[in-house]
Amino acid sequence: MLLVVGSVALDSVETPFGAREDALGGSATYFSAAASLLAPVQVVGVVGDDFPLAQLEFLRARGVHLDALERVPGRTFRWKGRYGYDLNSAQTLDTQLNVFEHFEPRLDARARRADRLFLGNIDPELQLRVLQQVERPRLVCADTMNYWISSKREQLMALLPRIDVLMVNDAEARQLAGEANVMKAAAAIERMGTRAVCIKRGEYGALLVSGSEAFFAPAYPLVNVVDPTGAGDSFAGGFLGLLDRTGASDLAALRQAVVMGCTIASFAVEAFSLDRLRDLTLAEVRSRFETFRKLTDYEALHASIT
Amino acid sequence: MLLVVGSVALDSVETPFGAREDALGGSATYFSAAASLLAPVQVVGVVGDDFPLAQLEFLRARGVHLDALERVPGRTFRWKGRYGYDLNSAQTLDTQLNVFEHFEPRLDARARRADRLFLGNIDPELQLRVLQQVERPRLVCADTMNYWISSKREQLMALLPRIDVLMVNDAEARQLAGEANVMKAAAAIERMGTRAVCIKRGEYGALLVSGSEAFFAPAYPLVNVVDPTGAGDSFAGGFLGLLDRTGASDLAALRQAVVMGCTIASFAVEAFSLDRLRDLTLAEVRSRFETFRKLTDYEALHASIT
Repeated sequence: MLLVVGSVALDSVETPFGAREDALGGSATYFSAAASLLAPVQVVGVVGDDFPLAQLEFLRARGVHLDALERVPGRTFRWKGRYGYDLNSAQTLDTQLNVFEHFEPRLDARARRADRLFLGNIDPELQLRVLQQVERPRLVCADTMNYWISSKREQLMALLPRIDVLMVNDAEARQLAGEANVMKAAAAIERMGTRAVCIKRGEYGALLVSGSEAFFAPAYPLVNVVDPTGAGDSFAGGFLGLLDRTGASDLAALRQAVVMGCTIASFAVEAFSLDRLRDLTLAEVRSRFETFRKLTDYEALHASIT
Repeated sequence: MLLVVGSVALDSVETPFGAREDALGGSATYFSAAASLLAPVQVVGVVGDDFPLAQLEFLRARGVHLDALERVPGRTFRWKGRYGYDLNSAQTLDTQLNVFEHFEPRLDARARRADRLFLGNIDPELQLRVLQQVERPRLVCADTMNYWISSKREQLMALLPRIDVLMVNDAEARQLAGEANVMKAAAAIERMGTRAVCIKRGEYGALLVSGSEAFFAPAYPLVNVVDPTGAGDSFAGGFLGLLDRTGASDLAALRQAVVMGCTIASFAVEAFSLDRLRDLTLAEVRSRFETFRKLTDYEALHASIT
């Protein structure tokens, strides 16, 4: 079983294609919507008493365990952001931690037995406290961001030796490693203790680096990108969902999981909020996964070219 | 035979890894250094009487025909640029057209019989005048830039229906099409008359779009990128060089050629100026071409994932 800790949030998002107010969002939400297509998921998180729980019913129907999602008095975590025509980066207009500010994750017996774990982009101290409660995790992935890299570096460095795959973007990898070249940055992060580094590049795809191995999957070339919010967490959901389903964790499995991550993320960005993930089927996912191959497939050189 | 028209220049370049003054550069130079590893090349261009012709000896030794490279009184085309740690985009500090300002390309009998043609990033009027002199080109590729897209739009629109592959970056594709989404932009450019659009993405690789087909090749993940100048022209050289060598022009051939373009471009950026291309061998190119496959290769989903 998969466990995710992260935000369940209300997002207000503007893109050139429209806007939404207080729509369903959050890293744990996107992650579990994506991963639950492939494997059972349990969510650890917190919402306020203003949160419209009915909006999570589709997750429950897909087998997501929400018992460890606490509901406490106060307002739900809120994020407000805007994207321009360059949909690759968001401008954060407002972040309200609200009930997340004093969140203290407590895992129940089921959550403690999780096989695979996604530590969404929250305070590395919280990530570590969740990880410590899981008895025997077989695979741990974590996301982080510039804010934690600068303000909680020590805690992050304590976390890294305990995780298998760190998921960051190019800028975060460079910042964490203090190294401009992305391949050198990935190698430096591996030396900090992770087994692999997955560099998420938005519309340019994702790069997985582990030791001397590099794997690259492009983003699916979409004609309609409406809202990139949650793409990274949907990627993580597809990635870990496939690994949990197959039970494999070698590099071949990680490669395949990167493509699954890109596949599900490509659906997530086709609509605002969770609108596309909500009704997404595994048959649609499988079909797009297969077309990915055509996107990077080419013939070997003829032997005459020496 | 391949024909290239473009600049043969003296570049002054600063990167975080060093600087060069008046080093060998220019689109035709990079293109022919790359392409000549695979096919015979002829250069059409102009240099001033200050140009150190001895620096082109390595091209001549590799079978590049330089008879149509005119030498006229005056100063050679000069470009001065700077790259920061984000090596993906240059800041142009100075451009001096010099002898290129009054360049009037005149093709000799051999050049007129070229099979494949690369119209380097020069005034679309000049590109068109070169193209009109080639008797029966089988494949024509052209590069262009923001300056021509805004100042010579009409001439560019006259050129597009006569070329097979337009090579531009994301921003140029968006600008030319007036469309933010890159896939829609590529489709719009195809409607302007080209058969395919190749979108060069620097460290993120290259995307080829033709009709409903899309192909993506990543950039080779390099630990040492020293100077990105000429990467795009080296890409074009590898691309057209392979197509000229194999004689094929179907989509499968274009895909393979994109990977060859990325392969040779990845060598070009490992050193300043033409320093890496100068001694590059086809065996090295072939070896790196083969390792590209591993970079994007992954296993199909097991049938149980439906």
